[in-house]
Amino acid sequence: MRATVLEGPRRVSVRDVPDPALPGPEGVVVAVEHTAICGSDLHLYHDAPTGTGIRLGHEAIGTVLEAGPRVRTAKPGDRVLVSGVIGCGVCGPCLAGQPNLCLAGKAAAFGTTPELPGGQAEAMAVPFADLFALPIPEGVSDEEAVLLTDILPTGYLGALRASIRPGATVVVVGLGPVGIMALQCASLFGPARILAVDMVPERLARAERLGAEPIDARMAPGSAQVLEATGGRGAECVIEAVGADATVADALACAATGGTVSIVGVNLSPAMAFPMGMVFLKSLTVRTVFAPVPGTWAALVPLVQSGRFHALADTFTHRMALDDAPEAYELFDSRADGVLKVLLAPKD
Amino acid sequence: MRATVLEGPRRVSVRDVPDPALPGPEGVVVAVEHTAICGSDLHLYHDAPTGTGIRLGHEAIGTVLEAGPRVRTAKPGDRVLVSGVIGCGVCGPCLAGQPNLCLAGKAAAFGTTPELPGGQAEAMAVPFADLFALPIPEGVSDEEAVLLTDILPTGYLGALRASIRPGATVVVVGLGPVGIMALQCASLFGPARILAVDMVPERLARAERLGAEPIDARMAPGSAQVLEATGGRGAECVIEAVGADATVADALACAATGGTVSIVGVNLSPAMAFPMGMVFLKSLTVRTVFAPVPGTWAALVPLVQSGRFHALADTFTHRMALDDAPEAYELFDSRADGVLKVLLAPKD
Amino acid sequence: MRATVLEGPRRVSVRDVPDPALPGPEGVVVAVEHTAICGSDLHLYHDAPTGTGIRLGHEAIGTVLEAGPRVRTAKPGDRVLVSGVIGCGVCGPCLAGQPNLCLAGKAAAFGTTPELPGGQAEAMAVPFADLFALPIPEGVSDEEAVLLTDILPTGYLGALRASIRPGATVVVVGLGPVGIMALQCASLFGPARILAVDMVPERLARAERLGAEPIDARMAPGSAQVLEATGGRGAECVIEAVGADATVADALACAATGGTVSIVGVNLSPAMAFPMGMVFLKSLTVRTVFAPVPGTWAALVPLVQSGRFHALADTFTHRMALDDAPEAYELFDSRADGVLKVLLAPKD
Amino acid sequence: MRATVLEGPRRVSVRDVPDPALPGPEGVVVAVEHTAICGSDLHLYHDAPTGTGIRLGHEAIGTVLEAGPRVRTAKPGDRVLVSGVIGCGVCGPCLAGQPNLCLAGKAAAFGTTPELPGGQAEAMAVPFADLFALPIPEGVSDEEAVLLTDILPTGYLGALRASIRPGATVVVVGLGPVGIMALQCASLFGPARILAVDMVPERLARAERLGAEPIDARMAPGSAQVLEATGGRGAECVIEAVGADATVADALACAATGGTVSIVGVNLSPAMAFPMGMVFLKSLTVRTVFAPVPGTWAALVPLVQSGRFHALADTFTHRMALDDAPEAYELFDSRADGVLKVLLAPKD
Repeated sequence: MRATVLEGPRRVSVRDVPDPALPGPEGVVVAVEHTAICGSDLHLYHDAPTGTGIRLGHEAIGTVLEAGPRVRTAKPGDRVLVSGVIGCGVCGPCLAGQPNLCLAGKAAAFGTTPELPGGQAEAMAVPFADLFALPIPEGVSDEEAVLLTDILPTGYLGALRASIRPGATVVVVGLGPVGIMALQCASLFGPARILAVDMVPERLARAERLGAEPIDARMAPGSAQVLEATGGRGAECVIEAVGADATVADALACAATGGTVSIVGVNLSPAMAFPMGMVFLKSLTVRTVFAPVPGTWAALVPLVQSGRFHALADTFTHRMALDDAPEAYELFDSRADGVLKVLLAPKD
Repeated sequence: MRATVLEGPRRVSVRDVPDPALPGPEGVVVAVEHTAICGSDLHLYHDAPTGTGIRLGHEAIGTVLEAGPRVRTAKPGDRVLVSGVIGCGVCGPCLAGQPNLCLAGKAAAFGTTPELPGGQAEAMAVPFADLFALPIPEGVSDEEAVLLTDILPTGYLGALRASIRPGATVVVVGLGPVGIMALQCASLFGPARILAVDMVPERLARAERLGAEPIDARMAPGSAQVLEATGGRGAECVIEAVGADATVADALACAATGGTVSIVGVNLSPAMAFPMGMVFLKSLTVRTVFAPVPGTWAALVPLVQSGRFHALADTFTHRMALDDAPEAYELFDSRADGVLKVLLAPKD
Repeated sequence: MRATVLEGPRRVSVRDVPDPALPGPEGVVVAVEHTAICGSDLHLYHDAPTGTGIRLGHEAIGTVLEAGPRVRTAKPGDRVLVSGVIGCGVCGPCLAGQPNLCLAGKAAAFGTTPELPGGQAEAMAVPFADLFALPIPEGVSDEEAVLLTDILPTGYLGALRASIRPGATVVVVGLGPVGIMALQCASLFGPARILAVDMVPERLARAERLGAEPIDARMAPGSAQVLEATGGRGAECVIEAVGADATVADALACAATGGTVSIVGVNLSPAMAFPMGMVFLKSLTVRTVFAPVPGTWAALVPLVQSGRFHALADTFTHRMALDDAPEAYELFDSRADGVLKVLLAPKD
Repeated sequence: MRATVLEGPRRVSVRDVPDPALPGPEGVVVAVEHTAICGSDLHLYHDAPTGTGIRLGHEAIGTVLEAGPRVRTAKPGDRVLVSGVIGCGVCGPCLAGQPNLCLAGKAAAFGTTPELPGGQAEAMAVPFADLFALPIPEGVSDEEAVLLTDILPTGYLGALRASIRPGATVVVVGLGPVGIMALQCASLFGPARILAVDMVPERLARAERLGAEPIDARMAPGSAQVLEATGGRGAECVIEAVGADATVADALACAATGGTVSIVGVNLSPAMAFPMGMVFLKSLTVRTVFAPVPGTWAALVPLVQSGRFHALADTFTHRMALDDAPEAYELFDSRADGVLKVLLAPKD
């Protein structure tokens, strides 16, 4: 079958690879119908790990081709969405929908190691399908299903962990795909205001359409403008959705005394220059969120079904064929052409 | 000055009474500009306590006429809204905005005892004004300010205490003024669905306009329809906003296993027939909310200012002069003419 | 094999019944080594349901005789403790250790219906053993393991749901086995005082040894004494561990304004006379807890292992042979001879 | 009167200064009876700010000499303990006992700026005494009262913000006075284990006497030993009570995936080298706590009164006269002679 393979820094190809086999009696093989490129894929893309050859992608939906004998919830022919992150499948947190807290230390995202080939491919193997693949519920569109594999849960956890209370002021730093999801999820917790910081006009305009107050960080640092907009106090809740050292620092500067900064942008720095004195004097809570979890589906699926989120399908600004993955990575990486997120379809 | 006085069962008058005096150095006297009749006033109206003569009303806004020497936050000429409920003004809960939990046991609503004359009058005395009167913030209309004296905080606490989590299904039983506030506040917590139960077509239509699914309890018991609409499971969160034994029982029947029933309808029964077996087998949490609290203003004022609530002014379906209070009580009690809530103005 | 069978009101026998068979590929058969009689068994004992013949008991530990092919956590020869309550074994709450909230509505205790024969027997069948049977961890004694099947989790949930905060005053109404567990678990949440109410001197003395202040309800109603001991305010947190209408009412009267009453005593009344007016004016939260859950083991096992609880084995005041179950029921029901809880051993 | 004055780096004197005057109508002047040196005083001591002359000390108890006309809770002759930190005295957080979150940005500790002379003196002025001075309750000793001015509340908040749940494993890094308070407060939340890390044998021994498992960081890094003691997983809850960059880093390394690190050690680094990648991959929550708050007294006073804490008075290993403050600072700074905390008495 065809699969997207990381060949080296800023170099991916789509080429023939062996078909996936059933990953144990609890697993399934899924024929991928739609898949997408995640901002975290760009980390691999920029800085290809040694020993490349990784088959990329952790956002995919499709149809079950084959199911192991112990799978209860899905059978061949069922359409499913696949959790971007999985775990051992046996421990308490895995059973409870939190593979990111897997007690066996086996939390991992598809498409990030050779052991767990990704979903930007014609097919993928999904272990422990009862836990990590969800039959696509009625009333959930294909685009929404793809968002439920990763970035909508990630944005939701980012908002949940920001401790938003009704009436609060929330800042979202970074309006890429995850930031836009976080922004929509923040509104689930009743804030009075959402301030949305970015440097890309289209992204600021999108946030404004979703009800946020746009803050253009090209004019002045986001935190300076947030402080001005809040009478010098800052915001009780800040969600960082970029992951760069500079944006993390700016997010911390946005926070009001006693506030919470929830970081969902991937930052793997071994020694970030961290303004601990400021964090200390403001008695902040700083939280990080690694990985979406199937445990969020119970909340998110009915919200998607009820239309509570706005225009989720519009998140995908570009649709391309799987074989065009190299161009898709380039486009997404460039932030050109108003790109927010690219949907790939193996069968196109 | 003129004030509304409870003369006996279903009998109120508006007559001359002595002007209020400053209630201590921390208090103010307020010239009332707008006031309203609350559903809980009807309890007094129906069943006038012996020794009538109570001056009614606990929802009022106006202008400070006189302020004691220790008042910091308001001075003569300032427009304020008055908390419907006050406490001793000195204990920890009172200082923290929760006079309903007053440690001195002095929680009381205006207009319910002779010691605390009410606000359906040309003027009223407000003790401990720094705690119990709020200068009307910019961006808050007069109608919104009146709602902030009682029913919006009450509805908010009802929703807050219903433990609503994103994606939940919420039922609101009773769509009178408090029920409508609770319904709007429920949406602050991200539910996927709100089912709204009542028997009055206008009220059901109003709930539907606010995004809820109307359930007409004239057709079948609300709980039967809720169970049907939820695949037999019931709702995780139920808000009861009537206070009758029958509606409390129906609210309990609406709840899913593990759910929460938050009762804001006043029910003073000494021995209600309570389905404890059902409550026990469903592991329910049952909460009651007596009294709005100033502590809710910090959340609600920015929400009102940001326009997060819809059409609050429309809550007032009728506007009348203070001297027409007798007719206003009759109208409100009858639920005729599409009445939801009546606004009274002493100066009209 | 031998099993305890409910023959009619206040009448149990121990007689030969068919051996249990493997309950599906995810189940095990357990040779029971120790089992106990629960206070809730007395409900069945007093008021035998029509169509008797139920095989009693939901507190048992033993050795796995046979395990289905899909069982991961236990194999023949392993010693396990069995959850008193189970569910469908497939839904989200069941996987997360909360069969009492089973979405399939299959929450059930062993030994309460003909479909789920109990553990007061030489052997028992346990479905979905990975979820509902726990290999007895190192450092957990047999007596402690029996307590972990039901009453320690139940007492823990009762305390957890009482919303105890550090410095609080807690009341435990009823010092039977569950009350004593609740009392020990209450101390996990940092209360300043625990007031313990009962009428049996031995039970009051036991509570005092565990650090509580005993209140003898033979002298005056418990609530009257609690109010006196708290300066008239009552306690923020009350745990009811009897289940009688009178003790529930007394527990509600013990609560301070804004407090929580957590009911773990089984009360199946269809129409208890409930002081709703008092509950309302005090803005109480009333919670019920049906059924212990495996989800509590993650917290309780390390606490047992670390010796945080005191003298758990002493909970068992009497040890008898399984064949003496009829006498054991009589004794436990009589509350005579200082009985708190009876341990039965099939092999004695 | 005599007061302790910061003269320069590692140089304090006790000399004559003007008597304090009443700080407004809501304030009091207190004749200090006991005062103590806090670990955070050593920050000033090491690195005296330019423009020295600061009158040190934020832990003091004494007798009211003079009270402003608006003070309700204390009158001349009453013995009081003084909050180490105060705020504007008028905003919502100040009224609610959280001056560290003062909306006016006036949160400040006594003895850290010229504007707020400290309590290591014969007398001190306390603004807004109803909020920031507590009449010493019955059953609270002088030593306990001094601990309630700062380090017991600080340790409590450190434990509270560590999100300890029953059965958890807690690590306390640093067993100085605040660490010992945090350790005692951690036990209020029901942990199964407390691991206590330090390099000073007396301090490790003290922790062991209080029920913790000592970890001697002279042998190997604390985190390495914590990981070994927890099967490689780390602890769910970590409290850092030193404030050095190295101990903060070690505390982060102690935490299990999904865990919380609560930092109470003062760290004012503008750019600490922070292992963000590790924090991110473990989905940690990192909290800081600046300043004790009067809002903790409602929980802590009854706990002190009930004897729930062990041997609080033993926290003071040395007692000296106020005039010996220079020697006391030297001793405390040296960690010699088994010093944990020094109590100073102006009248000795």
